[in-house]
Amino acid sequence: MIALHRENVRVFAPATVANVGCGFDIFGFALNEPGDEVRLQVTDNPGVSIAKISGDGGLLPYQAQHNTAGRALQSMLDTLQADFGLEVEIRKKMPIGSGLGSSAASSVAAVFALNALLKEPLSNERLLPFALEGERIAAGGALHPDNVAACLYGGFVLIRDKSTYDIINIPTPPDLYCAVVHPRIEIITSEARKMLKNQLPLQQAITQWANVAGMVIALMTSDYDLLRRSLHDEVAEPDRAVLIPHYEALKKAALQKGASGFGISGSGPSVFAFCKGLPLAKKVGAAIRSVFQENEIGNEVYISDINKQGPKIISG
Amino acid sequence: MIALHRENVRVFAPATVANVGCGFDIFGFALNEPGDEVRLQVTDNPGVSIAKISGDGGLLPYQAQHNTAGRALQSMLDTLQADFGLEVEIRKKMPIGSGLGSSAASSVAAVFALNALLKEPLSNERLLPFALEGERIAAGGALHPDNVAACLYGGFVLIRDKSTYDIINIPTPPDLYCAVVHPRIEIITSEARKMLKNQLPLQQAITQWANVAGMVIALMTSDYDLLRRSLHDEVAEPDRAVLIPHYEALKKAALQKGASGFGISGSGPSVFAFCKGLPLAKKVGAAIRSVFQENEIGNEVYISDINKQGPKIISG
Repeated sequence: MIALHRENVRVFAPATVANVGCGFDIFGFALNEPGDEVRLQVTDNPGVSIAKISGDGGLLPYQAQHNTAGRALQSMLDTLQADFGLEVEIRKKMPIGSGLGSSAASSVAAVFALNALLKEPLSNERLLPFALEGERIAAGGALHPDNVAACLYGGFVLIRDKSTYDIINIPTPPDLYCAVVHPRIEIITSEARKMLKNQLPLQQAITQWANVAGMVIALMTSDYDLLRRSLHDEVAEPDRAVLIPHYEALKKAALQKGASGFGISGSGPSVFAFCKGLPLAKKVGAAIRSVFQENEIGNEVYISDINKQGPKIISG
Repeated sequence: MIALHRENVRVFAPATVANVGCGFDIFGFALNEPGDEVRLQVTDNPGVSIAKISGDGGLLPYQAQHNTAGRALQSMLDTLQADFGLEVEIRKKMPIGSGLGSSAASSVAAVFALNALLKEPLSNERLLPFALEGERIAAGGALHPDNVAACLYGGFVLIRDKSTYDIINIPTPPDLYCAVVHPRIEIITSEARKMLKNQLPLQQAITQWANVAGMVIALMTSDYDLLRRSLHDEVAEPDRAVLIPHYEALKKAALQKGASGFGISGSGPSVFAFCKGLPLAKKVGAAIRSVFQENEIGNEVYISDINKQGPKIISG
């Protein structure tokens, strides 16, 4: 019998940037916005019932087993052997298919909310697999915990070993800001993944892990110049950049304005730029946006520091 | 005209461990011992003359252009447009072909010594290419600055970009010790390099750079448990371990005694183990040694913390 602390709660979980330059498949970090809200209401009927989906989620399925939040909740209820059910309201406050971890935000908001209902809440380590169950729908079988881990833990994380969920926090400079721009074009993650080669030359791999090391040192010592030198992706960017219109012009605009690195968020189409301080991040965001505008591509700009908190209770 | 500060000097430069687990081709660190000594005496005759080689260097050539120290010195004299010459004495205090950066120690000792003679000494950044000229003899053309950089800069270094000599210091825990054991068997670097594959699977590369990131975080936050989890080499170790007799038994002995990671130094045959504190490092060194002893393989054990100073003037 699971004891409950409360009967309803509303939770926000943030968008996340995964891959992060040379850190393909191993790095992720959380933004302050955008993100998703999930409201849960305990009911007497066992199982998960999705009552409402609003915001940008108009096309998402209401059947719990096909919905990322629904599936994550059901797997957690099953493990808890809960004798109650949940009525779920999902408020998508971010674009789907944006490369900003939209499905991770819903899954994490859902399991974090259910956890907040419990008298004896579980640790993040125990919540992670439930949130990943939700991701399974979006990822088409292959589970990449980068978005989910960054969203749930907050901050900047390393997925050292995805099979054992060995997630390590990387300290970041307090004045590190990120300009994220989402162009309104569609890239399917599983398609973007198919663009990748299965093998890579040893020298290219060495360059990549040298830059990964450089990036970690840069973040941990607030060395923005080293960050800029290190934030190159030899492996995924060359293949994936072709899916994002005007990629080279976007990158050039960001770096010329003084960004400390530019890259694709997740598998795109969103792009991000690291900047020292909020004013510069705003300028860089505007410079990236203007390249999209000139080419008549609608877009959203988000400016955020690293969200160290992760998900949070809004009310309930 | 180059102004001199003194006419002779004796310098010690340390042995180094390169590759360092998952950090293939990008990490290196300096030991306190063993190492090489080089004594220089200014002469009126231009050019480099090697007067004496003692210690473990019985087979090294006396012709300056074929000797690592000699060649490094000559390239530096040429660049300085020196109107004087040098008489060189080399005291090899470490085994050649050990995987401990023997040629780097000689080259670095030589250029560091010449630099110490100058009224206006050059920066380490400017010395590095001269020391690498010496390495060219040992490396057979391909230049890998890992040993030279670790030896010259001291400490634990990342070679972020070998083409621009972008060398970054990685802070390490003050109680990090290393047990190094050199078995008296021979491995030629260029042969060991041939054992490596030119391509590697993307998943293997991802595992490697995840561990590289984990290792940097572990060193910078004194997280010995993370160091142990991260210090795996998926790329070079499987191919190179077969050249070192009883490799698996050595590794098991070190880890069972409590080492925070075990690997091949450079291209071998020396092996190293990281340990928290001097007493543990001594125990681990003895455990590794005993595996060699049981198999009647002669060996030397060196116990050292990370040598943050690099080369040093002994007298002159």
